[in-house]
Parts: sequence; structure tokens; C-alpha cells
Amino acid sequence: MKPSVAVDGVLIKNGKILLIKRKNEPFKDKWALPGGFVEYGERVEDAVLREFQEEVGIKAKIKKLLGVYSEPDRDPRGHVISVVFLLEAEGEPKAGDDAADAKFFSLDNLPPLAFDHEKIIKDAIKEIKR
Amino acid sequence: MKPSVAVDGVLIKNGKILLIKRKNEPFKDKWALPGGFVEYGERVEDAVLREFQEEVGIKAKIKKLLGVYSEPDRDPRGHVISVVFLLEAEGEPKAGDDAADAKFFSLDNLPPLAFDHEKIIKDAIKEIKR
Repeated sequence: MKPSVAVDGVLIKNGKILLIKRKNEPFKDKWALPGGFVEYGERVEDAVLREFQEEVGIKAKIKKLLGVYSEPDRDPRGHVISVVFLLEAEGEPKAGDDAADAKFFSLDNLPPLAFDHEKIIKDAIKEIKR
Repeated sequence: MKPSVAVDGVLIKNGKILLIKRKNEPFKDKWALPGGFVEYGERVEDAVLREFQEEVGIKAKIKKLLGVYSEPDRDPRGHVISVVFLLEAEGEPKAGDDAADAKFFSLDNLPPLAFDHEKIIKDAIKEIKR
């Protein structure tokens, strides 16, 4: 057995962050960063842009690598290591694929979040303020 | 099928980098960054320090995340995504585990390298100069 690899994308603009409402378990109906599993043969940069477009309907660009989140208990399905990127993009989100909804939230008024995404968002805010 | 996750550690001190000579295929007898596969349930930070200690006999500390290398053809065994850290440490290297030898090389006189480690080392030098 080996860990799985996922990607998540952080898009923060004008003090707001783009989140999706999860359509499926785990964390159904909780909000989360757009993201998903890396496919075999796929670069992590391509995976995060693909997942982002599938879930929020926006073509984004990579700004920079934020971090790698690998606590074994961060996903109840098993050990999933997430590679997280800061993204930049224009356009209005439209929920698709595994997302029941997609919208911007003010950074000082976040909804209940899935996985360790609250920690990731805190790290992203710190990084952006640097 | 899913990608595997590996870690590699970069220790650069006084213009020299610590490399190991690979005991096994692929790239047997080529030089490489100390590293290896992440175990299920293991954090990437713990994995790189464990592999580093196993291969060069030195307890290191994480300095910072350098990058994530995920080109599908970077490892001939299949798709291996490597999470690479800059490390700091004291002490003399002593080859162990999968390493036939371990020693410091001047950054301007590197030996033939395995995988995409030449690119990783170039990125590390750029990051350290920043």
C-alpha cells in the first residue's frame, strides 16, 4: 500500500477565496479548496489546473507552490498527500463535476471547511502577506 | 494505478553538496540526492529525514520545501513524484542502506547524476542564492 497524491488550488483575490461545496463524502456539504487526485502520468501542475477547471469552470495559472500536506489522518479515506498551489485567474466560478456549489468567501468569514483546508488557507494568507 | 511518492534531501554547505552513489538500478553507480519512497502513514518531512539518515548516517533538519518534481518520465520504474527539501545538518557522511558511497562534491564539479537530480540541484542553488 502506498500514499495517494492529490492537489488543491488556492485562488485568493481582493480578500476573498474561491471554495467549492463538496457533493460527495467525505465531508459532503462542507466547503473545500478545489482539487482532487493526481492521475498516473500527470504532472502535479497539470492536475491542479485540470481539477480547478472541472470544479469551478475557470482556466487558472500557477502562481507558486504553497506546500505539501501529508499528515496521515488528514483524509478519512486513507493517507492522501496534497500538493497545494497558489493560483491566479479571472472569471466567474460555475460549479461542476464533484462540486455542488462554487463561490468566493471573505477571508474573515469562512464557512465550515473539509480536511485540513483551514490550516492550508491560513498558510496561504501568511504566504500572500509576505 | 497511481503515482508513487518519493522524497529527496538537498544538503549544501560551503559550496558543496552531499550525494550518494547508487548501489541499485535504476542508475546504478550514478550519483544522486539521498532519498527514497514515502511509506504509507508517514509525513513527507519524516520520510526525507529517515531516508537521509539511512543513506548517509546523518540526522538532519528540514530547512524548507524546495519543490515537487512530477514529470511522468523522470524515473524509469514508473511515475514517481518527488517532494524535495533543503536540509541542514552537521557531521561526516557514512554510506549506508542503498548507498554504495556518500560524499560532498563541489557544486562546480558535479559527477554524472541520476534521475532529474541535475535540474533539482540547479533549482536548489538558485533558491539558496535568493
